[in-house]
Amino acid sequence: MISRQEATTRILEVKKAKGLTFAQIAEAVGRHQVWVAAALLGQASMSADEAHAAAAALGLEPEVAAALQEIPTKGSQESAVPVDPLVYRFHEITQVYGSSIKAIIHELFGDGIMSAIDFEIDIQRKEDPKGDRVVVTYSGKFLPYRKW
Amino acid sequence: MISRQEATTRILEVKKAKGLTFAQIAEAVGRHQVWVAAALLGQASMSADEAHAAAAALGLEPEVAAALQEIPTKGSQESAVPVDPLVYRFHEITQVYGSSIKAIIHELFGDGIMSAIDFEIDIQRKEDPKGDRVVVTYSGKFLPYRKW
Amino acid sequence: MISRQEATTRILEVKKAKGLTFAQIAEAVGRHQVWVAAALLGQASMSADEAHAAAAALGLEPEVAAALQEIPTKGSQESAVPVDPLVYRFHEITQVYGSSIKAIIHELFGDGIMSAIDFEIDIQRKEDPKGDRVVVTYSGKFLPYRKW
Amino acid sequence: MISRQEATTRILEVKKAKGLTFAQIAEAVGRHQVWVAAALLGQASMSADEAHAAAAALGLEPEVAAALQEIPTKGSQESAVPVDPLVYRFHEITQVYGSSIKAIIHELFGDGIMSAIDFEIDIQRKEDPKGDRVVVTYSGKFLPYRKW
Amino acid sequence: MISRQEATTRILEVKKAKGLTFAQIAEAVGRHQVWVAAALLGQASMSADEAHAAAAALGLEPEVAAALQEIPTKGSQESAVPVDPLVYRFHEITQVYGSSIKAIIHELFGDGIMSAIDFEIDIQRKEDPKGDRVVVTYSGKFLPYRKW
Amino acid sequence: MISRQEATTRILEVKKAKGLTFAQIAEAVGRHQVWVAAALLGQASMSADEAHAAAAALGLEPEVAAALQEIPTKGSQESAVPVDPLVYRFHEITQVYGSSIKAIIHELFGDGIMSAIDFEIDIQRKEDPKGDRVVVTYSGKFLPYRKW
Amino acid sequence: MISRQEATTRILEVKKAKGLTFAQIAEAVGRHQVWVAAALLGQASMSADEAHAAAAALGLEPEVAAALQEIPTKGSQESAVPVDPLVYRFHEITQVYGSSIKAIIHELFGDGIMSAIDFEIDIQRKEDPKGDRVVVTYSGKFLPYRKW
Amino acid sequence: MISRQEATTRILEVKKAKGLTFAQIAEAVGRHQVWVAAALLGQASMSADEAHAAAAALGLEPEVAAALQEIPTKGSQESAVPVDPLVYRFHEITQVYGSSIKAIIHELFGDGIMSAIDFEIDIQRKEDPKGDRVVVTYSGKFLPYRKW
Amino acid sequence: MISRQEATTRILEVKKAKGLTFAQIAEAVGRHQVWVAAALLGQASMSADEAHAAAAALGLEPEVAAALQEIPTKGSQESAVPVDPLVYRFHEITQVYGSSIKAIIHELFGDGIMSAIDFEIDIQRKEDPKGDRVVVTYSGKFLPYRKW
Amino acid sequence: MISRQEATTRILEVKKAKGLTFAQIAEAVGRHQVWVAAALLGQASMSADEAHAAAAALGLEPEVAAALQEIPTKGSQESAVPVDPLVYRFHEITQVYGSSIKAIIHELFGDGIMSAIDFEIDIQRKEDPKGDRVVVTYSGKFLPYRKW
Repeated sequence: MISRQEATTRILEVKKAKGLTFAQIAEAVGRHQVWVAAALLGQASMSADEAHAAAAALGLEPEVAAALQEIPTKGSQESAVPVDPLVYRFHEITQVYGSSIKAIIHELFGDGIMSAIDFEIDIQRKEDPKGDRVVVTYSGKFLPYRKW
Repeated sequence: MISRQEATTRILEVKKAKGLTFAQIAEAVGRHQVWVAAALLGQASMSADEAHAAAAALGLEPEVAAALQEIPTKGSQESAVPVDPLVYRFHEITQVYGSSIKAIIHELFGDGIMSAIDFEIDIQRKEDPKGDRVVVTYSGKFLPYRKW
Repeated sequence: MISRQEATTRILEVKKAKGLTFAQIAEAVGRHQVWVAAALLGQASMSADEAHAAAAALGLEPEVAAALQEIPTKGSQESAVPVDPLVYRFHEITQVYGSSIKAIIHELFGDGIMSAIDFEIDIQRKEDPKGDRVVVTYSGKFLPYRKW
Repeated sequence: MISRQEATTRILEVKKAKGLTFAQIAEAVGRHQVWVAAALLGQASMSADEAHAAAAALGLEPEVAAALQEIPTKGSQESAVPVDPLVYRFHEITQVYGSSIKAIIHELFGDGIMSAIDFEIDIQRKEDPKGDRVVVTYSGKFLPYRKW
Repeated sequence: MISRQEATTRILEVKKAKGLTFAQIAEAVGRHQVWVAAALLGQASMSADEAHAAAAALGLEPEVAAALQEIPTKGSQESAVPVDPLVYRFHEITQVYGSSIKAIIHELFGDGIMSAIDFEIDIQRKEDPKGDRVVVTYSGKFLPYRKW
Repeated sequence: MISRQEATTRILEVKKAKGLTFAQIAEAVGRHQVWVAAALLGQASMSADEAHAAAAALGLEPEVAAALQEIPTKGSQESAVPVDPLVYRFHEITQVYGSSIKAIIHELFGDGIMSAIDFEIDIQRKEDPKGDRVVVTYSGKFLPYRKW
Repeated sequence: MISRQEATTRILEVKKAKGLTFAQIAEAVGRHQVWVAAALLGQASMSADEAHAAAAALGLEPEVAAALQEIPTKGSQESAVPVDPLVYRFHEITQVYGSSIKAIIHELFGDGIMSAIDFEIDIQRKEDPKGDRVVVTYSGKFLPYRKW
Repeated sequence: MISRQEATTRILEVKKAKGLTFAQIAEAVGRHQVWVAAALLGQASMSADEAHAAAAALGLEPEVAAALQEIPTKGSQESAVPVDPLVYRFHEITQVYGSSIKAIIHELFGDGIMSAIDFEIDIQRKEDPKGDRVVVTYSGKFLPYRKW
Repeated sequence: MISRQEATTRILEVKKAKGLTFAQIAEAVGRHQVWVAAALLGQASMSADEAHAAAAALGLEPEVAAALQEIPTKGSQESAVPVDPLVYRFHEITQVYGSSIKAIIHELFGDGIMSAIDFEIDIQRKEDPKGDRVVVTYSGKFLPYRKW
Repeated sequence: MISRQEATTRILEVKKAKGLTFAQIAEAVGRHQVWVAAALLGQASMSADEAHAAAAALGLEPEVAAALQEIPTKGSQESAVPVDPLVYRFHEITQVYGSSIKAIIHELFGDGIMSAIDFEIDIQRKEDPKGDRVVVTYSGKFLPYRKW
């Protein structure tokens, strides 16, 4: 039996060795590449079918598929303020625009939040003559605060 | 002369008293409501025209317009890990999905980042029979790492 | 116009001077005393009717009622690790029993969380000959992780 | 002789391999599944009988039973602010509702705390047509502050 | 009506101006000087009689007596690691001897804790030809961990 | 040659296997059990005689005795705010009563501190019909601040 | 296959054993020595040609070249406030002169930032009779804040 | 007499009202604009002549000149990790390139540091068809570690 | 009655206005200038005679003298890691040379510490043709660890 | 080839086994024992001659001598606030007396710092009938702030 963390290490080694992309594995699994990346990196749990499809796409043994079905302790960053510049920019957006995002969502929906559980992320490359753009879309169910 | 922070306090008081939305002020300014919210909350700087349009929409005096043209020290949160649940969810997304976002952007673009400066945010309410959804779209220019 | 924080200060002063309990105000508002305490302490937002009922019960002016309808920036503790012994015990429960709570909820429901938004708290005094007990009940909707 | 931490690792491996639930092991031990989970995860200490019953239910050797009788250094989270979303929600509840919980307990009992030692946790799945709910009940003895 | 914090400031000013010791006020209140100091410094709550006796001993008005009966948000230090050398030594004792204290209490009592609520502190000056000693005695009820 | 940390691990394993208490080892060493626990847990340094007596009582080899004579880098807790509930209560006492302890010691002695070096800890079990009590006594030399 | 971190360890060992400087390796790679140092220390990613040239200059095997082409999780310091005195001085410059640098850049360019991605560092030794000077030059593209 | 901080507030208000740049004040003072900005923002101390020239250029009274001659407690940022994006980029450079800068300086100079005291900063706008660049030059005396 | 902090502010204003040095006030008080600076800056407590001598030297009223006799809550820095470069260098010395200082003191004295209470600081300017030197001397009583 | 850290471990083992003091090794190296301790503990770099003399005095192989010539990443403490009581006292001195030291150095020298690079530490045992004293002397070149 191998741990969730060992499974991730194995997966990334094989993925690199075979030159597979997350998009290719995602196609085999039948889900979006961001979600598949999250599951392979230990941040989401797969069904048995999804896990076996992923393991098959990578050519890995059943115990990796078993590990992918465990519910992980989530958290992909080493510190609350990430240092890696790509990840930090998302932290900066929250720090700088957090109050604006909060104000606008409250104007559109009232008191509540955007769920990070009933939630999807999409990432696209958008061509632009001044330089291509990264377009990241968060779609989360609005959860109104319950009163009781 | 009033400080940037006093200007924000004044603006929010008048906005509430008059029942104005960011969308209405944004229309007067001629820009997107998220950006206008950011500028009014002290996270972006307006041109003279934008500032006067905003002050006029709110019925506020010229010194508020002057304050809105200053370049602020940015940062809208009191701590690196925000406590407010709506804002925290954006922090959580970065903590949980940060490694996946990084992996996918690198597969799509190579080594570099999504700019948080040449950057836009859009927020929409998307109707859904199972519960309306908050759709937040980040669009940032991809900046490849320069080699030298 | 008074700020949310000034409203809280006013409310607590009057509540103490008149010897009112949260239970009494809650009855006037028509909601549970824990929720009413949260709203009065700046952690939830009231409807116009609720706010006027609360202000009337306390004998406070309309601007307090207005403040109670604003959506607050939530967070009632000065630090991530609270020092006050009563509040700290709840922090300790999370630190000590967090892994057990996580394990049992996942066994009962699968991957997902207990919502802290679609959520209620009840607090009761339960008589016990060996010393009365505090019974705190959290009831939150289970939110399964969405796959996409 | 094996350490408390190695015992936990062994237990979780065997539990997963045999497909046992905490509820099943709890039945063998004769205690509540949340407490049994806490003991197996290194947050509580078992009597000799309880430890042998647990080891037997899992089919593990006596040294695991010995480890389960040691009094552990408690603490199940890696940081004061947990990142895992399920556990974080409990942290958020304390941050947001801590002042309300404190106010209500003081109104019901006077100055003192809810014990986290003479304390029980129950977790139930409550069916609900709008989505099942997680019901977590804390029952702790009220400890009045001693004056001297 | 004055706040708990203003009451403390008033008390300390008058105490200094009149040259009163905590021992003298404690005698008037009929309780131990450490507990009285804690109550006057905003870390414990007095009964009406105790509060009036304390206010009378200091020659202060009834609203101070009222403030002393409120249940405070406890915590007398500005940071988790206190800088003041006298207070730091108590922090150091916990850091250096904490594991030994834990080991010995568990050997004497089993799994559980020393209560900090059903708890008393005594401080004495013990004469010693090599230099007088500070003798601080903590007496807290042992609370065994409840199993359920 | 073994490190101080390995010596502690060895000692605790043997102590558990042989069912020895700190009190028994302390008797062999000829010192108080709290101090002996501190030395065995890597927080104090023994003389050659003490170290050999301790090693003999445990039936351990000379290199353990050598390790016990080294002066350790002290500190028995993993973080400034300990999570383990027994140890945390001592932290809480400092946080809540620190200002009172400081005030009383200054009234009894003037400006200075209780030494944590010329210092002793005693821990006793005191029978009490309402529940036995843990009595912890700190005795430290008063060190007046030197003026120069 | 070896990890990025193992590659760095190997590179530094061989570099020391062969007495090579970053300048010499940089010449082989055809890039600036600061960038080459960054790539070899795991803070930038090389093209295949660059990686093979670097591996050849060091006499290292192809798997090191493979590792140098991976996009690393960036971050070369163990803590947000570095302790090493040379690195700390750069932290100090930001802490002390940060507000001045911000003010001057805004006067020269308006609202925006100096990119740390489209960015170069040069380090030179400048002879000076009073003591040679370290001259560090940062050149980053100015990125004006986008309005939308 | 006014404090250093009040002087800064006054200076910035007048500077804005009169539309003066740091470059213009620097010319009056006879020093580099970055240093003059640092002195006006409370991070460096002026001679009497410099302070009077600065006050005269701004049309401010002698007490501002007096304040500018005091040696300040330096530090221009509210936290160790600055949030403002322009300032953060300098923090990021230290975090990402710190190990490379250290390695290259040691190869050029041996063991020692770049002084942040015998130190100058220059900031220039460099025109570039692909987008103008910010060129920041640090020049600090190399200080070799003294052996003794 | 004025607080300790107000006394410090008054003292520093008058000291600056009259152009007095700590050395001059120290001469009037009859103690070392570093100790006098510490007392005036709120880090030590004066006797009545010392306080009146200091107040007289500054031409300040009796209530300042009263404040100087209070025992302060000590701590002169805003954070555990000071930002001001002069003070930071002392922090750096502890961080870099702390293990060496510990090792040498233990070799010279055995297990124990240098007291920071029975302690003196002297600061001298030592002329040196290569640049004058700051000579700071700490003299603290060695306190051996007590065994019990 | 061995790492700097392994070299330190080796050195301390052999030093203990042979009963050598830092003073004895320092004599062989021809430098002060505090500096030699710093170099052996990984906080300073030796010349080839010094390193070979140190290795010879300890009877260690050439690769240790090679390691001692590397320039280390400096920092001897695990945290910004050290827990070990001996080292903490130096931290406390900076926290309590930092503002006084800053004030006196500025009165003696003007604006600038005591270098921690062009710097020496001496530690002596000074006999005293009331208890021997630790005398620690810091001698650092005064570095005046450069204006430009």
